[in-house]
Amino acid sequence: MTERRLEGLIEALRRLPGVGQKSAQRMAYHLLQHDRTGAEQLAAALQSAVLGVQHCSRCHTFTEAEVCDLCLDPQRDARQLLVVESPADCAAMERSASYRGLYFVLMGRLSPLDGVGVDDIGLQPLLARAGDGVVQEVILATSFSAEGEATAHVLGRLLKARGLTVTRLARGVPAGSELEYVDLSTLAHALHDRR
Amino acid sequence: MTERRLEGLIEALRRLPGVGQKSAQRMAYHLLQHDRTGAEQLAAALQSAVLGVQHCSRCHTFTEAEVCDLCLDPQRDARQLLVVESPADCAAMERSASYRGLYFVLMGRLSPLDGVGVDDIGLQPLLARAGDGVVQEVILATSFSAEGEATAHVLGRLLKARGLTVTRLARGVPAGSELEYVDLSTLAHALHDRR
Ligand SMILES: [Zn+2]
Ligand SMILES: [Zn+2]
Repeated sequence: MTERRLEGLIEALRRLPGVGQKSAQRMAYHLLQHDRTGAEQLAAALQSAVLGVQHCSRCHTFTEAEVCDLCLDPQRDARQLLVVESPADCAAMERSASYRGLYFVLMGRLSPLDGVGVDDIGLQPLLARAGDGVVQEVILATSFSAEGEATAHVLGRLLKARGLTVTRLARGVPAGSELEYVDLSTLAHALHDRR
Repeated sequence: MTERRLEGLIEALRRLPGVGQKSAQRMAYHLLQHDRTGAEQLAAALQSAVLGVQHCSRCHTFTEAEVCDLCLDPQRDARQLLVVESPADCAAMERSASYRGLYFVLMGRLSPLDGVGVDDIGLQPLLARAGDGVVQEVILATSFSAEGEATAHVLGRLLKARGLTVTRLARGVPAGSELEYVDLSTLAHALHDRR
């Protein structure tokens, strides 16, 4: 076969996370057969994002500007800095409408097995950001997985060493849950962290 | 939020089959954070494929030329025409090394519920192709799902009405299977036992 363009497309689609050979093939066939407009749109969107999306110089999230909208919002309380793993976590927290401070987005979490160390998440930018003299409390909101906990532990140690107040989101029973369906370690943590 | 480029990329990725909001978000973040080269490569591959990949004028599969390599191969037996749903099925049949005739790729199958009728699969091109005066036997190798069977039934009726010998892959293929996932020896036996 000398169908290099089709094979090249399948190869390129395989670089997407979670996409194997079969999915990439199905995607390529679908685009070429049913959605060439979608293929052109995706190509343009990729190029536009690569050219125009960078990291916010304050919170490290993705933005098209030097500083993102949220960091520029004068209504937010600059004394609180909430540390999350991804922009999606930041959006989830915003939807909860329970937080009025600022954010820092790590863009990952420590994962020694996958070779993700402190230099691969935004550690230095975080230390610089948290040490601006305005931030008083850093709230660690990395996930409650083993890797997220380890990340919170390492960051907490480094931030405390710089004289900052460091807190962690409470572990507990999710709102709306029946107690009998909550897993045991969550129950134990909820009891330990009781208010 | 005024992050149009990032949102545009997530929207465009959602047009890929099997990709929902969460996957699209994860893909966009991954590309921007870890694989901008991959993003550029995918953009280029999409454009290249949209510009250069078309349907073979003989078998209807994807190709960069007017007629694909397989259709041009003088070693193949032009008296047999095997009808499959997709280029992946064609590739699977080739890997079984049990067939020496030519192919016709429908690029789909009848699916009334999804609005896929006879005009959406390559029916007219198939009738023209099978009626070239050289083809003697049309082997229907659509999948053995309900839709694939219905497609074989409809095509069989129309092809027989034109005086062609029509056969179907033997039921060695497990019912409900997609052809491309069937093991090679089963494929070979199913071809041999065709009815
Ligand atoms: Zn920001
Ligand atoms: Zn061809």
